[in-house]
Amino acid sequence: MQSIMKLPPKIRLMEVGPRDGLQNEASIVDTISKINFIENLVEAGLKRIEITAFVSPLWIPPLADQYEVALGIKRVPGVSYAALVPNVKGYERAVAAGVNEVSVVVAASNTHNLKNLNGDTKKVMERYHEVAKRARQDKVPFRAYISCGFGCSYEGEVAVSAVLNLASKLLEFGAYEIALSDTIGVASPLDTMKVLEAALLEIAQDKIALHMHDTRGLALANIFAALTLGIGSFDASAGGLGGCPYAPGASGNVATEDLVYMLEAMGLDTGVSLEKLCDTSLQMEKILGRKLPAKLIAGRRTVRT
Amino acid sequence: MQSIMKLPPKIRLMEVGPRDGLQNEASIVDTISKINFIENLVEAGLKRIEITAFVSPLWIPPLADQYEVALGIKRVPGVSYAALVPNVKGYERAVAAGVNEVSVVVAASNTHNLKNLNGDTKKVMERYHEVAKRARQDKVPFRAYISCGFGCSYEGEVAVSAVLNLASKLLEFGAYEIALSDTIGVASPLDTMKVLEAALLEIAQDKIALHMHDTRGLALANIFAALTLGIGSFDASAGGLGGCPYAPGASGNVATEDLVYMLEAMGLDTGVSLEKLCDTSLQMEKILGRKLPAKLIAGRRTVRT
Repeated sequence: MQSIMKLPPKIRLMEVGPRDGLQNEASIVDTISKINFIENLVEAGLKRIEITAFVSPLWIPPLADQYEVALGIKRVPGVSYAALVPNVKGYERAVAAGVNEVSVVVAASNTHNLKNLNGDTKKVMERYHEVAKRARQDKVPFRAYISCGFGCSYEGEVAVSAVLNLASKLLEFGAYEIALSDTIGVASPLDTMKVLEAALLEIAQDKIALHMHDTRGLALANIFAALTLGIGSFDASAGGLGGCPYAPGASGNVATEDLVYMLEAMGLDTGVSLEKLCDTSLQMEKILGRKLPAKLIAGRRTVRT
Repeated sequence: MQSIMKLPPKIRLMEVGPRDGLQNEASIVDTISKINFIENLVEAGLKRIEITAFVSPLWIPPLADQYEVALGIKRVPGVSYAALVPNVKGYERAVAAGVNEVSVVVAASNTHNLKNLNGDTKKVMERYHEVAKRARQDKVPFRAYISCGFGCSYEGEVAVSAVLNLASKLLEFGAYEIALSDTIGVASPLDTMKVLEAALLEIAQDKIALHMHDTRGLALANIFAALTLGIGSFDASAGGLGGCPYAPGASGNVATEDLVYMLEAMGLDTGVSLEKLCDTSLQMEKILGRKLPAKLIAGRRTVRT
């Protein structure tokens, strides 16, 4: 088996803790702590970081300081500071705040879009078409998440064809990468392989990323399954920050440190310093006042307290 | 990839929560709660349960009530109630208490054996040879763990040949199954495959089990890697009970409910009721007064408190 696996030649990570993580935490983190957090993540070696969302503070109160964060961070050359945007207005605000790259999210479930994105799938995709046009004009990299890619809390099972239809449209719009997202953390490794094998028939390997939530503890197993198919781009959240809006108390994104440990242990270089990353997560843990789920910080936490 | 994977035809689980789990918890659980715990695990559908260890209470104080537990549980036909034994004396006590099957543990690290098993590897194996002879005479199933099979906190890397030498001797002694154990939770999925692929050259598939600790969050990824090689026998601990004596605060065995979720989501039947199992873990969580690491109980915990 080992000999026939197509492990990816290169690993790319997208750190989503400051956005997807903090957006789903019960406590709101102050702006200075967010800026320190992002700067420390960069120092730990992360090269792509989603720092905030340019969405109305009415929709996402924890990210109301989007401008202050984006303008406050010390920029390091070679690092992409990304932000989620819901529409052209958000796009303009993000770019005005000096964001390097933008991302959009659409669910492979019409009900989910209606309930969370203020429009059906068609309407949401029209908005993103406009965002994509502007991003192309401005030469701003454009990335897309397809949420509920492995199941939806409203609609249940999601057809792979629905995921791939959205993916091909978003690629036509100009997305440099599609992050297939298990928003509710429901996929098994076989589900992951099923979706990826179908995707690989239509989409180039280096345009596919995986964004897994660890709600049921399967994120790393799913990522390993993806690695065996040559997928090398993964989203993760420092400390495993975040949660699931549909399951209070549940885990958030896969923890960056646990993912980095797995990749490095498999001989796949990430460029990330585990020591610095764990220190960064432990600082955020103190600010939030709750234990973060990353496994790798447990030993260090005990040593320090 | 999916088409070439050799998923196992049948899943066998060994629930080790009452022994490996409770042995490594900071709080000592009272005997009646242990008996309820074991009976509830059986009701949830688990068919093999390691209920305690017949080791001196001086060595493992949390399991000092080994007799009371073994004699106190209501037996259900078709369920194997196993116990860990260190030597013939422990074996005799276990059998006297009505245990159906015995297990022994030896590390693939001489230093680990010297420090934890009161003898070097040779001496420990001599003891187990005696245990195995008695078990064969009495027709008591005999199972063996090879601990530190993927690395050792004293010796670092462990040679695969050291693991396989022990395995072949234990099989000669009459072990019906060898549980290759990642005691310190250090293996990556590739390490798991490397050891298993070597093992499968010498040992029949149905004599190999995997006993993974989730110290770094990789247990399920490793188990998925094993499933792709046809391995179908796994140890797990309800709620993810337990810990690692070498890393305070770290996770214990892989959580039975998370493992069962993954297997069932892959279409592999376990015969376990997730609902009953989660309820059982949540009861134990209340008794211990700490949140257990199983992901699957997070949502249920929130609903109930």
